[in-house]
Amino acid sequence: MAEHHVTVEATLELLLEEKKYATLRDILITMNPADIAGVFDGLEESALPLLFRLLPKELAAETFVEMDPDAQELLIQGFSDSELREVLNELYVDDAVDIVEEMPANVVRRILRQADPQMRKEINEILRYPENSAGSIMTTEYVSLLPDMTVDEAILRIRRTGVDKETIYTCYVLDKNRTLIGLVTVKDLLLSQNEDNTIAELMEDNPIAVNTHADQEEVAQALSKYNFLALPVTDAENRMVGIVTFDDAMDVMEDEATEDMEIMGGMTPSDKTYLRSGVFDLFVHRIPWLLLLMVSATFTGMIITGFENKLSRLVVLTAFIPMLMDTGGNSGSQSSVTIIRALSLGELEFSDLPRVIWKEIRTAVICGLTLSTACFGKIMLVDRLLMHNESVSVMVALVVCITMALTVLVAKIVGCSLPMIAKKLGFDPAVMASPFITTIVDALSLLVYFGITNALLL
Amino acid sequence: MAEHHVTVEATLELLLEEKKYATLRDILITMNPADIAGVFDGLEESALPLLFRLLPKELAAETFVEMDPDAQELLIQGFSDSELREVLNELYVDDAVDIVEEMPANVVRRILRQADPQMRKEINEILRYPENSAGSIMTTEYVSLLPDMTVDEAILRIRRTGVDKETIYTCYVLDKNRTLIGLVTVKDLLLSQNEDNTIAELMEDNPIAVNTHADQEEVAQALSKYNFLALPVTDAENRMVGIVTFDDAMDVMEDEATEDMEIMGGMTPSDKTYLRSGVFDLFVHRIPWLLLLMVSATFTGMIITGFENKLSRLVVLTAFIPMLMDTGGNSGSQSSVTIIRALSLGELEFSDLPRVIWKEIRTAVICGLTLSTACFGKIMLVDRLLMHNESVSVMVALVVCITMALTVLVAKIVGCSLPMIAKKLGFDPAVMASPFITTIVDALSLLVYFGITNALLL
Repeated sequence: MAEHHVTVEATLELLLEEKKYATLRDILITMNPADIAGVFDGLEESALPLLFRLLPKELAAETFVEMDPDAQELLIQGFSDSELREVLNELYVDDAVDIVEEMPANVVRRILRQADPQMRKEINEILRYPENSAGSIMTTEYVSLLPDMTVDEAILRIRRTGVDKETIYTCYVLDKNRTLIGLVTVKDLLLSQNEDNTIAELMEDNPIAVNTHADQEEVAQALSKYNFLALPVTDAENRMVGIVTFDDAMDVMEDEATEDMEIMGGMTPSDKTYLRSGVFDLFVHRIPWLLLLMVSATFTGMIITGFENKLSRLVVLTAFIPMLMDTGGNSGSQSSVTIIRALSLGELEFSDLPRVIWKEIRTAVICGLTLSTACFGKIMLVDRLLMHNESVSVMVALVVCITMALTVLVAKIVGCSLPMIAKKLGFDPAVMASPFITTIVDALSLLVYFGITNALLL
Repeated sequence: MAEHHVTVEATLELLLEEKKYATLRDILITMNPADIAGVFDGLEESALPLLFRLLPKELAAETFVEMDPDAQELLIQGFSDSELREVLNELYVDDAVDIVEEMPANVVRRILRQADPQMRKEINEILRYPENSAGSIMTTEYVSLLPDMTVDEAILRIRRTGVDKETIYTCYVLDKNRTLIGLVTVKDLLLSQNEDNTIAELMEDNPIAVNTHADQEEVAQALSKYNFLALPVTDAENRMVGIVTFDDAMDVMEDEATEDMEIMGGMTPSDKTYLRSGVFDLFVHRIPWLLLLMVSATFTGMIITGFENKLSRLVVLTAFIPMLMDTGGNSGSQSSVTIIRALSLGELEFSDLPRVIWKEIRTAVICGLTLSTACFGKIMLVDRLLMHNESVSVMVALVVCITMALTVLVAKIVGCSLPMIAKKLGFDPAVMASPFITTIVDALSLLVYFGITNALLL
């Protein structure tokens, strides 16, 4: 797809140079807003305002929403007040909020000044909800119906008010206090055999809703679980205040998975894409964990130092340290990754901990036995027979293999339980992934190694 | 939510014991199918058929789709032919295909025998597409319109044929050869001011579509990028054959992210959730990488063995091996995780490789300098001043810190380039994550360590 964009960009820039604006416009209006934004983001900044002004009003607003915050800011800076007002009028409230959240304070003030009073009020309302809550990602533009409307009246209402709604396909039935009492889909309305049926007869009762303060991840999971187009958001008094639509849920799912992976990779999560992140951004997100883990690796060093005298008599043991540490780290990270993902998909609860540990213990025993058998064979075959390493005695091989089995066991128990405990304590379980687990397991595996060496070899 | 289910399950089982079927039914019909399935999956197997038969026909089918494959199989085994036919008639084709794919051969034969001829034909067609392709996850049940229909005729057609369609909200305009020429939404139709407008006048031209053989991940990304409810799927001759709806795209996104995380955690990906995976399942998915990585750690061992004589004179160096290896591993895994995610979100192409490497080199230099400065300070302060470890000379500290800076550099270059090269060669980039990178970086960091030791200390 990148190759495709390069060509489109080059074509557009050429047409722009040749001032063939009519042709430019004809090409742009056949394109999807997300694709236009993709092309615009790759263009030279100076070309942007001119090209943007070629777009018809609605397409311009739809494209604007899809662009990079940097390009959005550039455009807003160049907009006249009436141009800004025009774009704002075409935006859905949740998109306007997303833009406001990315802009510097002076641009935000200008946006709020130019937005019409109703939109300004709604933007301010949504901005009040905590970050990553259902309230902060919802839109207030949904279709509401009354229970005593007929099907015909409902369709009429949709026709009259639908143009500004983010979705018209699921309509929410509210009573006089704006309490959510049911929902009805346009499919139900269109396929209804009797036009005089009331909404109350047709609607689905007991609609599933989330509270304004629910976590956005929970909202996305609910939308995905129930296959809903939109999920209603209600306040503490059960009054309906907005909806979250599936496309926002998809973005949340993608962002949350990226965030989990970044944390699991030992980074603090970042909002920017890789290519948009500067070197300093990358540094800032990566250095904290590197420093922390480097310092905590000091303990591993101390354990080795404490054993230094004995180790100098049996240097052969040193050669197996990386293998034992890596196998332990890998075993632990397998368990932690599996558990972290299951937690974030809502498949596990803290109450499952004993069951999880028991499953991991049994898995660790089979993995440990297989690995240490393979390892024993490898040592005998490679180190003794092939490489004639005399210092690798059967006893040394035995110590290494027992350590390996025990390390796998310890690693899997630590790997599965730390994420669950972290979640219970209110931390992000993803923190308990590979880098962290590895550091702990490293120290533990060395303690086991030297303990067994002491018992069997010295 | 689990607590909630436990209560519901207990209540249902109690009511079942007391044979209060009417009450049971009243409770169940207020629930969402996904929630009923969640409760059913936790019930005793013997209770399942009876409870399932209490559900009204449509709710029964919707619940059936959401259940575990094991429970589905159990139910099908107990169904009479006419019961099976009834459930099948209520299913969408893509859901039927999902079920068929999970069932053993004899159950599949029975399902195909009981499905009506049209559905059987469509199931067989979808089954022919390669796994994870757009064709394999699409449904053939969409609304098609002709360009010369009026708005009124189109609405009439939707009313007449819509009941069996997976979505009616986006309708596809086909010419006489079933070539996709445009699309029109129900919103456009309902909000259209003139009922005599033709679909050709109203429709969006140049609809975005994917080929039947496109990867499901690409399909999910397109749906998410364009915020579409459904994406049309066309064959090699550009004829429309089906649609993929947003809810299936959400499942794909979730599955693909889970799969990436599993591979990045050093496991072969699994279809089963954690709690449904047996100990042997877990073993099978985890042991291959553990064995492979254990064996490849042999090289690290060999490097140490080759240096054994010199190491025995300078045992103090051993104490820093874990810290150097861990820091290298963590640095490399930060880069690889970032790049793997960017690749799977379509943000990077192979042509970006030089730019990526250059960015990683600069990041590595700043990270490396920061880390080695911190490390030098730590060694001087902790090891020399606090712990009075005489063998840790300034020269030793220098060797360790230079190694650290170089290891970070090497780790970041390896970590960012291997996933991109893997993708170019047609492998899954996620394989090039932490466990694999760690093993390579371990060996490289030891080579650097001993090389610098040789040059500066011996």
